[in-house]
Amino acid sequence: MSAWVLPDHIADVLPSEARHIEELRRELLDTARAYGYELVMPPMLEHLESLLTGTGEALDLQTFKLVDQLSGRMLGLRADTTPQVARIDAHLLNRQGVARLCYCGPVLHTRPDRPHATREPLQFGAEIYGHAGLEADLEILQLALDCLRATKVEPLTLDMADARIVRSLLSGTALGSDRLAALHAALAAKDATELATLTRDLPQATREALLALIGLYGDAKVLAEAAKVLPPTPGIRQGLEHLQWLAGHVEGARVSFDLADLRGYAYYSGVRFGIYTPGASDALVRGGRYDEVGAVFGRNRPAVGFSLDVRELVGVAGKRPLKAAIRAPWPDTGAGGAELRAAIAALRHAGEVVVCALPGHDSEVEEFHCDRELARDAAGRWAVRSL
Amino acid sequence: MSAWVLPDHIADVLPSEARHIEELRRELLDTARAYGYELVMPPMLEHLESLLTGTGEALDLQTFKLVDQLSGRMLGLRADTTPQVARIDAHLLNRQGVARLCYCGPVLHTRPDRPHATREPLQFGAEIYGHAGLEADLEILQLALDCLRATKVEPLTLDMADARIVRSLLSGTALGSDRLAALHAALAAKDATELATLTRDLPQATREALLALIGLYGDAKVLAEAAKVLPPTPGIRQGLEHLQWLAGHVEGARVSFDLADLRGYAYYSGVRFGIYTPGASDALVRGGRYDEVGAVFGRNRPAVGFSLDVRELVGVAGKRPLKAAIRAPWPDTGAGGAELRAAIAALRHAGEVVVCALPGHDSEVEEFHCDRELARDAAGRWAVRSL
Repeated sequence: MSAWVLPDHIADVLPSEARHIEELRRELLDTARAYGYELVMPPMLEHLESLLTGTGEALDLQTFKLVDQLSGRMLGLRADTTPQVARIDAHLLNRQGVARLCYCGPVLHTRPDRPHATREPLQFGAEIYGHAGLEADLEILQLALDCLRATKVEPLTLDMADARIVRSLLSGTALGSDRLAALHAALAAKDATELATLTRDLPQATREALLALIGLYGDAKVLAEAAKVLPPTPGIRQGLEHLQWLAGHVEGARVSFDLADLRGYAYYSGVRFGIYTPGASDALVRGGRYDEVGAVFGRNRPAVGFSLDVRELVGVAGKRPLKAAIRAPWPDTGAGGAELRAAIAALRHAGEVVVCALPGHDSEVEEFHCDRELARDAAGRWAVRSL
Repeated sequence: MSAWVLPDHIADVLPSEARHIEELRRELLDTARAYGYELVMPPMLEHLESLLTGTGEALDLQTFKLVDQLSGRMLGLRADTTPQVARIDAHLLNRQGVARLCYCGPVLHTRPDRPHATREPLQFGAEIYGHAGLEADLEILQLALDCLRATKVEPLTLDMADARIVRSLLSGTALGSDRLAALHAALAAKDATELATLTRDLPQATREALLALIGLYGDAKVLAEAAKVLPPTPGIRQGLEHLQWLAGHVEGARVSFDLADLRGYAYYSGVRFGIYTPGASDALVRGGRYDEVGAVFGRNRPAVGFSLDVRELVGVAGKRPLKAAIRAPWPDTGAGGAELRAAIAALRHAGEVVVCALPGHDSEVEEFHCDRELARDAAGRWAVRSL
């Protein structure tokens, strides 16, 4: 096999797309910063138990493992940044009050999430720690929507669910983790036949409620319908109230509900959401409340957040024109070229891209998009002119 | 062991430093862009033979290895980005003319380079492919110096050497790789005793020239001295001429030479350099010419480049004040808060950081540096005032 063949679901990012990703990255980080979210950079590698304790089997299977030559211990390559941010909040910052944190960096997956997914997403996310009230959920929703708007992704649909609903329906039943995973998958796929099979030996009321759940998707009417057909347990009542409140206050997106949707990370504990746009095959953003995620680090703080893959975003954010550049001749070395070197430096300092043609390469097809050139004008001075 | 303990030589980057690193990252990428360097993003993971063929044993030992579950093949986590960029130039871009490329992303090392080094540098670099002339070396030198100046690192010392000198002295001798590595280390450490032992059975002229080499460091006089004491082989003559030419044309740094310095990557084939500043224990930047590096990908193009660790840079680039923020009350939900929500959105859109106090957290010590607040003025309008 040739040395230049990359592993499956791993790809280089070439110049025009890389520049676009870099611009999106800056717009996302600047939007989070404008809300007061502080940037953190957790490491790519950690001890396996820091990355995985309490995060569920799915993340474990997604995590590349290797041995640390310095200690002989098992390390993991992060497959998700949230457990790391929870560790930073709990242990390193250890603040009494609210902490607003954001991050942007690669994560690696042993297997692709979906048929054409990359195994190396560029994960951007933002999280609030320390506030149990719905205001934190609302701020995170609003920030996620603002981030997508900053990258010119529109129109947006916000699709909400609540982790407490299914959890409440299944409380008291003792399902193994395999069965639970199959049940979650059947709910997400709205597969009534599979769901009926999987719930055969559950109490009749639970079974009917789970089967009703797969019909509970759509606009605001879904919440009223859910209040009628689901049992009025405290978890379900609270989940529906919270969804109602958030839907009434969030601005800038069409709101829908899909109460059976449980995709995403296993650590969600309350309201959860996905944000969709036409042209993207899956949610661009996933987020929600995960109050338990810091427990393993000794500090069980309320937490809400979201994340997205910047590489996925680039596909729907619309192509941007490459910034045009100025072509310049290669300056004579020595005193003769001083004037041209100064002209080039001044243009670059003013934010222009100036590409010097290396000697012998003047006649080449120019790969960088040069729409102007630096040349002597009638008075013999160096000046920019159109090509 | 606690779940929050990180592996040795691996660290989180906390908010104030992370913000600084992000600013440096942007300044470096923008400087390279102003020179017409196009951004590429190679993957973190590749097949081992793509990462390591032709790059030497040192890089092999530095590279974390793992098994790809999808193919059963060995993968490596990149420990250096240059072989990846050579692959992109050779295979993916495959241009006839000059390609100017830059990159910025994490690399991982199995072992730290130096006693207090991180195992996760954030590597930034720039490279020119396709031009064999010294103009490419000069542009890379000038760009590296401009990058450091853009990040306010000064004063700078450019220390140059040439890989052809030692290679030419040792041509015709048949040293094993262990012995060669020990010899390079003794030269870099200027350890005459060790060098004398290692070269005991080499021809007398070679031995004397190698021992003379460790005295050949300092200002421009070194080149004249080298021309006198080293044998006039073509490789040595050419190396010294190229150093002379570059030293005469590079602007913006004190220039020195250290002809015995062979530290850095094994793939260098011509002029090589380090850039130093007071306060940094090692070179901030290393670079040079590596014309052979693309051979494994079937395209042996001339190449020059440099790289640096942005995390290392942050230690000498000087602390910057955190951007001050504006504190705002939590807006009433509903119509009552519309005016305040609009005021907050307008400030954020204008580039300000506005932190909303979540209900119940007003009296907390504010971690973000807020020097102003948004409050109603005498006329009842929302306005920013100093704190």
